[in-house]
Amino acid sequence: MNMERNQAGDWRSCLRRVTPYVPGEQPKEQNIIKLNTNENPYPPSPAVVQSLKQMDPVRLRLYPDPSCGTLTKALADYHGVGTDQVFVGVGSDDVLAMAFITFFNSDRPVFFPDVTYSFYPVWAELFQIPCECKALDESFRIRSEDYYKANGGVIFPNPNAPTGLVEPLSFIEDILEHNRDVIVVVDEAYIDFGGQSALPLLARYENLLVTRTYSKSRSMAGVRIGYAIGSPELIRAMQDVKYSFNSYTMNQAALELGAAALADEAYFKMTTDRIVATRNAAVRRLTEQGFHCLDSAANFVFATHPQYDGEKLFAYLRQHGIYVRHFNGPRISQYLRITVGLDEEMERLYETLERAYGSL
Amino acid sequence: MNMERNQAGDWRSCLRRVTPYVPGEQPKEQNIIKLNTNENPYPPSPAVVQSLKQMDPVRLRLYPDPSCGTLTKALADYHGVGTDQVFVGVGSDDVLAMAFITFFNSDRPVFFPDVTYSFYPVWAELFQIPCECKALDESFRIRSEDYYKANGGVIFPNPNAPTGLVEPLSFIEDILEHNRDVIVVVDEAYIDFGGQSALPLLARYENLLVTRTYSKSRSMAGVRIGYAIGSPELIRAMQDVKYSFNSYTMNQAALELGAAALADEAYFKMTTDRIVATRNAAVRRLTEQGFHCLDSAANFVFATHPQYDGEKLFAYLRQHGIYVRHFNGPRISQYLRITVGLDEEMERLYETLERAYGSL
Repeated sequence: MNMERNQAGDWRSCLRRVTPYVPGEQPKEQNIIKLNTNENPYPPSPAVVQSLKQMDPVRLRLYPDPSCGTLTKALADYHGVGTDQVFVGVGSDDVLAMAFITFFNSDRPVFFPDVTYSFYPVWAELFQIPCECKALDESFRIRSEDYYKANGGVIFPNPNAPTGLVEPLSFIEDILEHNRDVIVVVDEAYIDFGGQSALPLLARYENLLVTRTYSKSRSMAGVRIGYAIGSPELIRAMQDVKYSFNSYTMNQAALELGAAALADEAYFKMTTDRIVATRNAAVRRLTEQGFHCLDSAANFVFATHPQYDGEKLFAYLRQHGIYVRHFNGPRISQYLRITVGLDEEMERLYETLERAYGSL
Repeated sequence: MNMERNQAGDWRSCLRRVTPYVPGEQPKEQNIIKLNTNENPYPPSPAVVQSLKQMDPVRLRLYPDPSCGTLTKALADYHGVGTDQVFVGVGSDDVLAMAFITFFNSDRPVFFPDVTYSFYPVWAELFQIPCECKALDESFRIRSEDYYKANGGVIFPNPNAPTGLVEPLSFIEDILEHNRDVIVVVDEAYIDFGGQSALPLLARYENLLVTRTYSKSRSMAGVRIGYAIGSPELIRAMQDVKYSFNSYTMNQAALELGAAALADEAYFKMTTDRIVATRNAAVRRLTEQGFHCLDSAANFVFATHPQYDGEKLFAYLRQHGIYVRHFNGPRISQYLRITVGLDEEMERLYETLERAYGSL
């Protein structure tokens, strides 16, 4: 290393250049129907509203509890696990980023599906983690055999996104059985809308990490809460990395509102049940319109129309005030990912699509 | 790379092992006097209290604006810079972590003082950035000549912590003049309590990044807001990395309360003036008790007593319900870092110290 100073050197050469993840649009217009980022159409639980009202502004002068005690305890009780098995973060993106940096430290590539949450390859690039995408089969299913080969870790969502397809517990267990020497992360962002959680497998697999979010089923995307459940050893390693990054990630509001949300199971069940009913109706209605819809276990429908171009449908809807998500990636560019909204919002969607067919 | 599967391999070998930063205690007891983590003794501004009251819980179901538009605009207006010159994060720790990963990508070591914010070496370890500590001089001052040699970036707080010593603008400029080929980060967490900000130098140095926090002078440690101001090119690079990490770091509460806080300059001035007055009185009172106090420009006093052991004083105070900070590091183990509290809290401190002298 040449320690002579070369003042002609450009500071720009020190910059890290990355290709960032592109989140769905957050349009500022008021009168649109927003079915593009898998938010919940229902407001947060009345318990959350109450907690917000009672929040003590004077407490805000102090740092929050860095161990996130109240929220961690509430989550541990809710899921029937120890407080040393829960890690909380600023949305599940923060939790997953911490998992990547904590668990994927092998020379071998991390495996994940080719069509999946598009943040995985972004974290791999950011943290310089080798990775390998495993192609979904022709019906967009994950092939468990693809994950038998030696690797540096495995991550996939269940239900998968943007497909919405869920795999049974036996499938998860098969992957775990073939990956006892690495960490396996099951991203359960959408599990409350369908399918069986991998949480019961924690008792037998210390190398399993399950992640969750408040952004979908808890109607709290704006509060930024995600969490992971795993063996105390995995959680401790994540905590150490988190404390090396930022000691206080969860603000006081997130800690209080997050704990409050768990108290109201009836509201949670009612709203998720409604979303599931609206989703099932949506699959029916869209199919009647000629769409091919994947079998969704999530709060969105992934659908393609054999007669109409995906990008054109997306643009038409957008022009008419309905935002859905369209990905320009290979294999899925003909699909729309439509978040399940209120019934009346969905009616507007069906009507607008009918008009689209006449004009495209 | 051997891609044969060795199921006897242990998943533990995949874990990242780090030595985390240890934050100051956040004790749960109610009746203590908390002078250990440089929080503000005054509540957040009435504008913040008002904003909290008016917060719309229904909005929480939606993702926050990923560009943090309202808060960024408010900060840009406040500081008279462009919105493309402001980066916001979850406390200045988040901002600094992003700066480390974005800007310190050289084979050469990053330079920072030996006695300084103890998170710097932790980030360097986490992100595997080579670094070199430059010893403060015998009066705990940063020596600018130490930063002339070729390096991979420079970071220091001004005022420095835990010393509280501030350097003039000419000093910052000298360092910038000798470091045109790397990024120089000036961490101004405490600048509102004394000294001149480096912000005016931004007009001439595109490689300068200035960071700030709401945790000290804005009485909002519990809301987790920090920010950086720099050239549009630096800010864009940080945004790209941030979007590769977590698109939505700032929750709705932080965005709204953060913008509201800036509206009330009178309250801000009043509370910081009071803290400065209490600090100056503290230096006088502690000096009268035989302490040697460094010349603080921050909201804390860094002091050592020639007759009494630093750790013993710390333990005595703690036992009597007064939490201050004691660092076990080389050169500073005889010092206490005492956050400036309310006048009545400081009186309790002086009385308790007087009693300590009789019993130690």
